[in-house]
Amino acid sequence: MQNILLLGAGRSATSLINYLKKNAEQEEWHVKIGDFDIKLAEEKGGNHPNTSAVQFDILNEIQTKDEIAKADLVISMLPARFHPKVASACVDLGKHMVTASYNSPDVEELSDIAKSKNILILMECGLDPGIDHMTAMEAMDNISEKGGKLTSFKSYTGGLVAPENDNNPWHYKFSWNPRNVVLAGQGVAQFIRNGRYKYIPYHKLFSRYETIEVNGLGDFEGYPNRNSLKYRTIYGIEEIPTLIRGTFRKAGFCDAWNIFVQLGVTDDTYKMEGLENMSKRDFINAFLPYNKTQPIEEKLCLNLGIKRDSETFKKLEWLGVFEDAKVPISDGSPAQVMQAIMEEKMSLDPGDKDMIVMQHQFEYELNDKKYRLDSSIVSKGDDQLETAMSKTVGWPLGIAVKNILNDNIKLRGVQIPIKKEIYDPILKELNNMGIQFNENEIEIKD
Amino acid sequence: MQNILLLGAGRSATSLINYLKKNAEQEEWHVKIGDFDIKLAEEKGGNHPNTSAVQFDILNEIQTKDEIAKADLVISMLPARFHPKVASACVDLGKHMVTASYNSPDVEELSDIAKSKNILILMECGLDPGIDHMTAMEAMDNISEKGGKLTSFKSYTGGLVAPENDNNPWHYKFSWNPRNVVLAGQGVAQFIRNGRYKYIPYHKLFSRYETIEVNGLGDFEGYPNRNSLKYRTIYGIEEIPTLIRGTFRKAGFCDAWNIFVQLGVTDDTYKMEGLENMSKRDFINAFLPYNKTQPIEEKLCLNLGIKRDSETFKKLEWLGVFEDAKVPISDGSPAQVMQAIMEEKMSLDPGDKDMIVMQHQFEYELNDKKYRLDSSIVSKGDDQLETAMSKTVGWPLGIAVKNILNDNIKLRGVQIPIKKEIYDPILKELNNMGIQFNENEIEIKD
Repeated sequence: MQNILLLGAGRSATSLINYLKKNAEQEEWHVKIGDFDIKLAEEKGGNHPNTSAVQFDILNEIQTKDEIAKADLVISMLPARFHPKVASACVDLGKHMVTASYNSPDVEELSDIAKSKNILILMECGLDPGIDHMTAMEAMDNISEKGGKLTSFKSYTGGLVAPENDNNPWHYKFSWNPRNVVLAGQGVAQFIRNGRYKYIPYHKLFSRYETIEVNGLGDFEGYPNRNSLKYRTIYGIEEIPTLIRGTFRKAGFCDAWNIFVQLGVTDDTYKMEGLENMSKRDFINAFLPYNKTQPIEEKLCLNLGIKRDSETFKKLEWLGVFEDAKVPISDGSPAQVMQAIMEEKMSLDPGDKDMIVMQHQFEYELNDKKYRLDSSIVSKGDDQLETAMSKTVGWPLGIAVKNILNDNIKLRGVQIPIKKEIYDPILKELNNMGIQFNENEIEIKD
Repeated sequence: MQNILLLGAGRSATSLINYLKKNAEQEEWHVKIGDFDIKLAEEKGGNHPNTSAVQFDILNEIQTKDEIAKADLVISMLPARFHPKVASACVDLGKHMVTASYNSPDVEELSDIAKSKNILILMECGLDPGIDHMTAMEAMDNISEKGGKLTSFKSYTGGLVAPENDNNPWHYKFSWNPRNVVLAGQGVAQFIRNGRYKYIPYHKLFSRYETIEVNGLGDFEGYPNRNSLKYRTIYGIEEIPTLIRGTFRKAGFCDAWNIFVQLGVTDDTYKMEGLENMSKRDFINAFLPYNKTQPIEEKLCLNLGIKRDSETFKKLEWLGVFEDAKVPISDGSPAQVMQAIMEEKMSLDPGDKDMIVMQHQFEYELNDKKYRLDSSIVSKGDDQLETAMSKTVGWPLGIAVKNILNDNIKLRGVQIPIKKEIYDPILKELNNMGIQFNENEIEIKD
């Protein structure tokens, strides 16, 4: 019997836990689920004979060491800030660790000790980061194996609502942390295109998207994420002339969201005054120039150069930002007010399914010919528990755990899933579970 | 003999030191000038019999206590981050302290002990902050003394170049820290106008200025500074419907500067890659969309909606941003690159005089009539040492020192110059020294 300790049993752990339970008997696993909320841990474990639950507090150092000492492998679904703590205890006690969160300098510096203790700390093994790395590396390894030279790599991922439940003009509902959606893109987007460095400030980001068709699903808009440049080193493609990683929204989203960015209502750096007496209409007006007589709708259209009968304006109106109703919170930043307004309208309804869309676009040269390979994943949720987000984050973790405990993955130290030894078994099993790539390759004629 | 310890003998201390020397004999002062650079301290003291110089290191705690212990009053012209250290030593040793820098929570919390030790810590006693507080409070006190009710207060200050040396299309040269000029306005501008809170994000700031005529000097553009709202409490005008504090530039500046803001080249939050191989032209191009054939000038005009033959475009061209010459630095943030480019063109030439322009606009009601009072100060530098900036920062400090040591100012604790006891003697003497207000009052007929 091998002991798996899972820390954190929240929403995003659902599919992971189901995967672990399904495999537990055959793989001879005992899965202990630790959460600050013991009820949640018990509920997620169900009555499965190979699971147990424990009230777990990461701030309790004695308990942390105690529980990790009893495990063979630890999966951390805790908030990212706790990962260095967990990783450090795992290294001390000689236990493998797996997470779906971004690697960090604090964790990275444990790599040498982890190697010396013969353990693996596998970071970024969920969806994004996770499946994005694995599928990108698989395609790039294939291209270089056959002697091709990669000249361009663009990759976009979006967490959206399934088309059958898409019933609002934004074609968007919150399928993950709404706060991150409101703050998405803040900072500067950095990438390289045809050998030229490009930097897009946040206030220009939502007007500089590309429109991309994804097979059968219509047009999407892809806007660049913060720092694409660092992926040249991570993926070992330092000399690539074009590298852009970005986020997908359905067509029409970016122009409308850009209005909020232009107004400044996505700012999370200060608290607003006077919210307790503000209507949604007053809230928007606080970001527009003073004008004694002009209605807010007119002022907004004039100041931001949109038409009253445009699709963009209809989206704003649908969200209710011109209503006389009070803003939903009486204290907070503009971004927090916007989030609350959006949550009233953009949450998933019971029965709604979410959808993950990921597309990689590669261009490469081989034998004096140029090729373009588009490769996309579309994954829909089954229901409100087994969401696409939960599956695509949880399954890669679960499969990684299986292959580490089976000794198929022998890499040690701090790793992310960019090596074939890791991505190969994970992508194969994901494929069997229905997370499949749709590939399309064409020769480019200049 | 009373002992004054002046810490920091840099450029901005010139006029202060000259003021202190001029008054030293009559007032029976000994002025000890401390600077990390002893040569600078000696040079600024000259051979004046009432001065001495000392090599001073604020990080040397023993020396700091030692020197402060020997003084009756300390003037700190050190970088603002050192003021809490100086203030704390002054409080410990029971010595008055005066600075031209912003008050801070660290200093503010010393107020009660300072009172109990019968000492005054006078902060914000330079130009801005300083003269702005004093002149505003004087006018507001006058209005309320005669029974008027203040309904609007707008105040703008700018550090510019004197008209006789204004020979570039921006009508601007650096008369103080260029870095702060490049970063000016970052964050969000918060103010209140006709009872409505207004928030302007940085990327809209330079398109939402007001054009204001200052007597005899032509048109200026005033854009709001970061947080005007807090001045309601500071000035005791909590209920005022309109309060805006801002910065002055000459007409035409804001539209052109706005192009840089829109491009994102004033961002100081990240380091750019590839600067070592970039021309100024490439630098600008890094912030514009990729286009294989379109020249950068055309692309910029098209993307940012300006005309090739506009005054705005001429300003950009004059700065040299479309030149093939290398960018002046090979490592740094966009803002650092911009600063270096601007310093090549916008520095004061030898012999150039700087100019300070400050304007307050008050509106008030009295006996059922409405009045508007405009009150402005224009001060020019004498030469490159006695600049307008140095005089308007240094003289208020010097006059404050005189009145504290003379016991005309009896206030104790941490203060800023908003009380008549402080501003009255300072403004009177400034007036005699040529820093004079030009006032203009009219009745407003609706």
